[in-house]
Amino acid sequence: MRIALIGGTGDIGQGLALRWAFDTNHEILIGSRDPEKARTMAEEYETELDSRGVETAIKGFTNEMAADRADVVVLAVPPYHVADTVEAIAEKLDEETILVTPAVGMKGDEDGLHYHPPSAGSVTALVDQRAPEGVPVVGAFQNLAADRLANLDVDLSLDTLLVGDDPDAKETVRLLAEGIDGLRALDAGPIANAAEVESVTPLVINIARYNDDMHDVGVTFH
Amino acid sequence: MRIALIGGTGDIGQGLALRWAFDTNHEILIGSRDPEKARTMAEEYETELDSRGVETAIKGFTNEMAADRADVVVLAVPPYHVADTVEAIAEKLDEETILVTPAVGMKGDEDGLHYHPPSAGSVTALVDQRAPEGVPVVGAFQNLAADRLANLDVDLSLDTLLVGDDPDAKETVRLLAEGIDGLRALDAGPIANAAEVESVTPLVINIARYNDDMHDVGVTFH
Repeated sequence: MRIALIGGTGDIGQGLALRWAFDTNHEILIGSRDPEKARTMAEEYETELDSRGVETAIKGFTNEMAADRADVVVLAVPPYHVADTVEAIAEKLDEETILVTPAVGMKGDEDGLHYHPPSAGSVTALVDQRAPEGVPVVGAFQNLAADRLANLDVDLSLDTLLVGDDPDAKETVRLLAEGIDGLRALDAGPIANAAEVESVTPLVINIARYNDDMHDVGVTFH
Repeated sequence: MRIALIGGTGDIGQGLALRWAFDTNHEILIGSRDPEKARTMAEEYETELDSRGVETAIKGFTNEMAADRADVVVLAVPPYHVADTVEAIAEKLDEETILVTPAVGMKGDEDGLHYHPPSAGSVTALVDQRAPEGVPVVGAFQNLAADRLANLDVDLSLDTLLVGDDPDAKETVRLLAEGIDGLRALDAGPIANAAEVESVTPLVINIARYNDDMHDVGVTFH
């Protein structure tokens, strides 16, 4: 499958790119507003993977070109860029393209991070509102610590939660997620349930802050 | 230590009463608006513990009398009764009494449960607003599935999260929580961070609903 990581030069995009390239045979496309930056990062990921004995071709593109070529488009951009990014790539999306959103709105103060969703109720709901008619949207990968994801030496042993209104799209993303070693995907229901999923992200960051010896905290449900 | 479970006839109160009585030497007081109901439940808990070889005296009281006798008062009541309950027992609380709140505001629709905090921002913040001046408040035990907690045959292997503004009170509650076998207490920061903790409760219920073979879902962070 062809996966475009829009914002694939940022930390969550990097982690997903490296894990999918390392653990699966999916084709990874890195998207950025600056295609030169995307190509540079793609080369860095290739070098990292090559050093681990994995020969793979990761290519860099503009966001639009990456989206155009992909079966699954991951919006690995900061929450305040999500709406603009969907608009920028909208013409390249169709009913055959799954749009995946890992972003979470947060704001910080002296106490910690707090969940701060857009007025749509969640970033996932915002993406669903802004995506072209018929394009299936799945929220996923919100609660993965980026540094842990990007470090291939670390065993994940973590859960990720899926929200989506299209069962087929959700199943595709579940299989993509579980293609990553140590990652289990659980269903958290439709997009209406996204806020409870997204708000775990500030929580795990607060837990890392307030507990000695906990870093890059993730979550499992059982 | 003397622990009053206000609303100790409900399901989370039952689970905490049984676990503390089984795993520790703390003295457990069951509070209810109806003292007869409290005494009946206390006897049931004693019978359950006796059948497992644990001889212990659990007593039932009115909420006010239970609070008056306790070092730690757990408000194991539904979220819409929290403010009234704090008011009812307020005269019995002082700076030496720790008020613990496990309640979470939720509302459900056809998609699942959603976090629905009071206007104070969280149930924990509401309790903190309504508690008499100087009474330390700690949010804890929000994300424990009640049936799993109350079934002493089940190994918990779960985390609970603590929020509170008084470090000594939080440390006392941490020790109480970790007195329960298989329960680990993590610090999630001050009461300002309570919403992210409380919103895990609808999430774990949604996960139990949408994933086959998952019931009484709890959470661990690592």
